[in-house]
Amino acid sequence: MSLLDSLTEALRVLPGVGPKSAQRMVYHLLQRNREGAARLSAALASALADIRHCGRCNNFTEAEICERCLNLARDASQLCVVEMPSDLAVMESTHAYRGLYYVLMGRISPLDGIGPRELKLDKLIARATDGTVQEVILATNFTNEGEATAHYVGEMLRTRGLKVSRIARGVPVGGELEHTDLGTVAQAFVERRGW
Amino acid sequence: MSLLDSLTEALRVLPGVGPKSAQRMVYHLLQRNREGAARLSAALASALADIRHCGRCNNFTEAEICERCLNLARDASQLCVVEMPSDLAVMESTHAYRGLYYVLMGRISPLDGIGPRELKLDKLIARATDGTVQEVILATNFTNEGEATAHYVGEMLRTRGLKVSRIARGVPVGGELEHTDLGTVAQAFVERRGW
Ligand SMILES: [Zn+2]
Ligand SMILES: [Zn+2]
Repeated sequence: MSLLDSLTEALRVLPGVGPKSAQRMVYHLLQRNREGAARLSAALASALADIRHCGRCNNFTEAEICERCLNLARDASQLCVVEMPSDLAVMESTHAYRGLYYVLMGRISPLDGIGPRELKLDKLIARATDGTVQEVILATNFTNEGEATAHYVGEMLRTRGLKVSRIARGVPVGGELEHTDLGTVAQAFVERRGW
Repeated sequence: MSLLDSLTEALRVLPGVGPKSAQRMVYHLLQRNREGAARLSAALASALADIRHCGRCNNFTEAEICERCLNLARDASQLCVVEMPSDLAVMESTHAYRGLYYVLMGRISPLDGIGPRELKLDKLIARATDGTVQEVILATNFTNEGEATAHYVGEMLRTRGLKVSRIARGVPVGGELEHTDLGTVAQAFVERRGW
């Protein structure tokens, strides 16, 4: 296989990139932006080498434990469970929450072959039962998969004696945090209910 | 800037990738396909190091002169000018042509700041006036830009005493070779006219 074909094929690991757009990308990079292509190659290599999951919140980080988890100003008695780092970012933008997080890095999604085992929920259990966490707030999306995840995780943690709440359904049904206005997300947080 | 942000930004060199899809790509690569990300990083680096433009046809190649240009079985008296490597591939698929090619790697496009100088047409002139080429066949697209390019290149080469032809307008007006059925492209080639 030529280097050109290898590169075209390699670009298809990117979600949403089909054969035609991979080819367009190759031409663009080689013809118009070799510097950008070099930056991309290096950024990928650095990210792979140095980005790992935080030992506490499971979010991406370059450290063993991320800065947020080490921040003593945050309320360690509350643990907010979100699906993805982008959801954590949305919660932070609302300024409605001062506790800590756990990022699932996914959701239960049988169609994609992602069950409780693939989500490695053991790590969440260990984190939530550290003795400091008093309340777990489920802030997964209100999609079918997010709801199923909240049910599963909520049940799992309640069984272990934890107080579990769910952010309110102020987020439109079927909606995703990332596409919801901040006011609604903040309200949903305030109105969270026992689970 | 964190490695995560660097990677997100670096992915935006890809055409059609905005901030949201760059973020999705980062999550996907780091979470679900680190092996694919490593392959992509390496493929980019190899391509940048070893892919250059063929000294004759200007197409991408790993050699000084590409295999097609070195193929003595091809008719060196005909030179077909196309915009992109993908257009060359379409012409080849028609099996209607046995001559050689010149790939412009673009088209005259004032809106994108691409004029005759950016296309480095000197290389085409040198190639077409090597004494062996008898006929230059213009096979740029029938878009406004492709037509303008054909006019400009055709005039430029005719002034230098070359016989110039244009593939027939069998390709739908406004259409692109890449999206035209092979039969039409083959017919357009056969019915090319003096330019
Ligand atoms: Zn953390
Ligand atoms: Zn060549």
